Amino acid sequence: MSETSRDSLRERALVLDAADPLAARRKLFALDDDGVYLDGNSLGALPVHVPARVQDVLTRQWGELRIRSWDESGWWTAPERIGDRIAPLVGAAAGQIVVSDSTSVNVFKAVVAAARIAGEGRDEILVDATTFPTDGYIAASAARLTGHRIVPVAPADVPAALGPRTAAVLLNHVDYRSGRLHDLPGLTAAVHAAGAVVVWDLCHSAGALPVGLDEHGVDLAVGCTYKYLNGGPGSPAYPYVAERHQAAFDSPLPGWNSHADPFGMTPDYAPADGSVRGRVGTPDIVSMLTLEAALDVWDGVSVDMVRAKSLALTDFFLECVEAYAPAGRVTSVTPAAHAERGSQVALRCDGAEPVMRRLIERGVVGDLRRPDVLRFGFTPLYVGFADAERAARILAEVLAGDTVG
Amino acid sequence: MSETSRDSLRERALVLDAADPLAARRKLFALDDDGVYLDGNSLGALPVHVPARVQDVLTRQWGELRIRSWDESGWWTAPERIGDRIAPLVGAAAGQIVVSDSTSVNVFKAVVAAARIAGEGRDEILVDATTFPTDGYIAASAARLTGHRIVPVAPADVPAALGPRTAAVLLNHVDYRSGRLHDLPGLTAAVHAAGAVVVWDLCHSAGALPVGLDEHGVDLAVGCTYKYLNGGPGSPAYPYVAERHQAAFDSPLPGWNSHADPFGMTPDYAPADGSVRGRVGTPDIVSMLTLEAALDVWDGVSVDMVRAKSLALTDFFLECVEAYAPAGRVTSVTPAAHAERGSQVALRCDGAEPVMRRLIERGVVGDLRRPDVLRFGFTPLYVGFADAERAARILAEVLAGDTVG
Repeated sequence: MSETSRDSLRERALVLDAADPLAARRKLFALDDDGVYLDGNSLGALPVHVPARVQDVLTRQWGELRIRSWDESGWWTAPERIGDRIAPLVGAAAGQIVVSDSTSVNVFKAVVAAARIAGEGRDEILVDATTFPTDGYIAASAARLTGHRIVPVAPADVPAALGPRTAAVLLNHVDYRSGRLHDLPGLTAAVHAAGAVVVWDLCHSAGALPVGLDEHGVDLAVGCTYKYLNGGPGSPAYPYVAERHQAAFDSPLPGWNSHADPFGMTPDYAPADGSVRGRVGTPDIVSMLTLEAALDVWDGVSVDMVRAKSLALTDFFLECVEAYAPAGRVTSVTPAAHAERGSQVALRCDGAEPVMRRLIERGVVGDLRRPDVLRFGFTPLYVGFADAERAARILAEVLAGDTVG
Repeated sequence: MSETSRDSLRERALVLDAADPLAARRKLFALDDDGVYLDGNSLGALPVHVPARVQDVLTRQWGELRIRSWDESGWWTAPERIGDRIAPLVGAAAGQIVVSDSTSVNVFKAVVAAARIAGEGRDEILVDATTFPTDGYIAASAARLTGHRIVPVAPADVPAALGPRTAAVLLNHVDYRSGRLHDLPGLTAAVHAAGAVVVWDLCHSAGALPVGLDEHGVDLAVGCTYKYLNGGPGSPAYPYVAERHQAAFDSPLPGWNSHADPFGMTPDYAPADGSVRGRVGTPDIVSMLTLEAALDVWDGVSVDMVRAKSLALTDFFLECVEAYAPAGRVTSVTPAAHAERGSQVALRCDGAEPVMRRLIERGVVGDLRRPDVLRFGFTPLYVGFADAERAARILAEVLAGDTVG
């Protein structure tokens, strides 16, 4: 790279950061100034106020109030309450999201429920063939139990694969590997036109870009909370069940927490109305209230602002990589078109593993998707343009150096 | 009651507490000296060292190391590591328990897996008709999905109900309502004699009495960690899969965490060996490490010591209730025989609801099982004999008072 291009990109980064309406959010997070954390699409950073809030949960709510906290500290209703806080981030009205269990467990609930909603006579479940593997494994298990057949299909080929046999379709909003954003409105409409039920996995989109669940008429969705929602390692996930489907939502995991009268302790199961029906067992309060505290960083932020910055950040990072990296050494597998891009950049790179190791040693934390993808997540609440420039510069230095091979 | 009997019971309580080898454990817990907490069978008390440990998880492991903690802080292997710490408390050798998900979700895994282990040609699942409801709801869902028929049966009637059609039997070790301890060795042997597979729910026995999973040849079990194991509200539960069944354990929730090569991200599922196969999605680290810290209170304690004290405590409480309470006002539904008693006392009582409300106002915290059962859990690590005497005395005062009706 030339000195001029580097100086000019650095200068542009400073100008962009100065104009960034989200720049002030960075101080809400525990981050080192001497590193660039680009793995928030795997584990979001800690909001600095969270530990004190969790201390209160432990010492006062559990330690002093003990069992009374189920009522007095709002533990019992936390799954719905926190679900309602996530709802606006994914374009859902209140009462449709409940925080509960892991993403995998929620995929199971959603796929079985979707197949049941679709009804008799439809025996195929289409599953995104490029999906994060757990979705495919769980969908296959659901299909085995419900007597459906799994049809793996790339998202772009879904419209052609849909038919009168299609019961349900499980799709990822953003591909975890390439960062490709799939066409949620168009694919949802296509699934509906075939009379089938769609389940969207929002793990890599919730908190990174507008999802518009209600607006686009999505049926069911699941998402995780430890990536762009910064809920903490393995924090609980959530199902979304569109209000129109709630009465027909027939969960394969009808635990006592989803009962219409959970403390009636009746031998027969009668499902609760509303999003509560997506609950299973006793909610994992410490993790759940950690997440609830973490969601405070979203106060006053719209997802549209986040999306605008995310696209500007990934554009700028790609521009810096293009300017700095040795020619031909890396190739972006993330789509250039904004409409097809999530909030990460994935670069194909020979010798990706040692490159990522060296990047991490130098403070640029991304991750590796074997065999040859360097993955960099851009979390607009705490990553800035100077971070993007610096990460690209260090990447170029590592690629030009002697650590690869 | 007479002054003499009261004085003599108080005196005996002091003597018993003075001779109690577990008495010193109480100071490990956050408890008020002006109350008696008899709800540890619902939510165990907070071990005082836990908040500092959780702070470290949040501020250093998550806040500073972030994604590196999956390796460097041992997050990834926490489910097996913590499972191995629970193992000796339930009589299991290492490598058979993994901490994961809620009890309800684990009941689902275990019942489906048990039915699959039993094989073709057996189409009935017997379920404890007196069970905590979630077990019955989940078993019914499992049966619906696997094509089995549910047969509700009281534990005592299980031997007569077993037959060549029996695939699996789901039983509670201790009845959550009455506190009755069921005959795990005898019932397990009976189930095996019929060629079926048994699943024990240990929620109300783990940490309260010897379970002897390996010794008695139990096939599968599930348990929770927030009662006698003090793991915190809704802390994750665990499945036990006997080593001889692990290769055949065919989980209905084959999430990526149970894959033989989870980071291979392969489209086909290949289950891991060992207890790891019981995992599903990303482990809920904050809750899980809260539990791990809480388990320190067991260092140097044997479950036999706990059991001896538990029986002495419940005997003594019953004796005090008998001495103090107005005649005929309460009746124990907990068996008098030690071999049939868990670690709680359940008293049938007219007007149980206002009685419990008044008890809680006076600092004696038990709970209510509608319509008419007062439930008192005795957790030997932090409840003493003076507590038992005091609880019985206050109960008698409340029963004799004007708050009932």
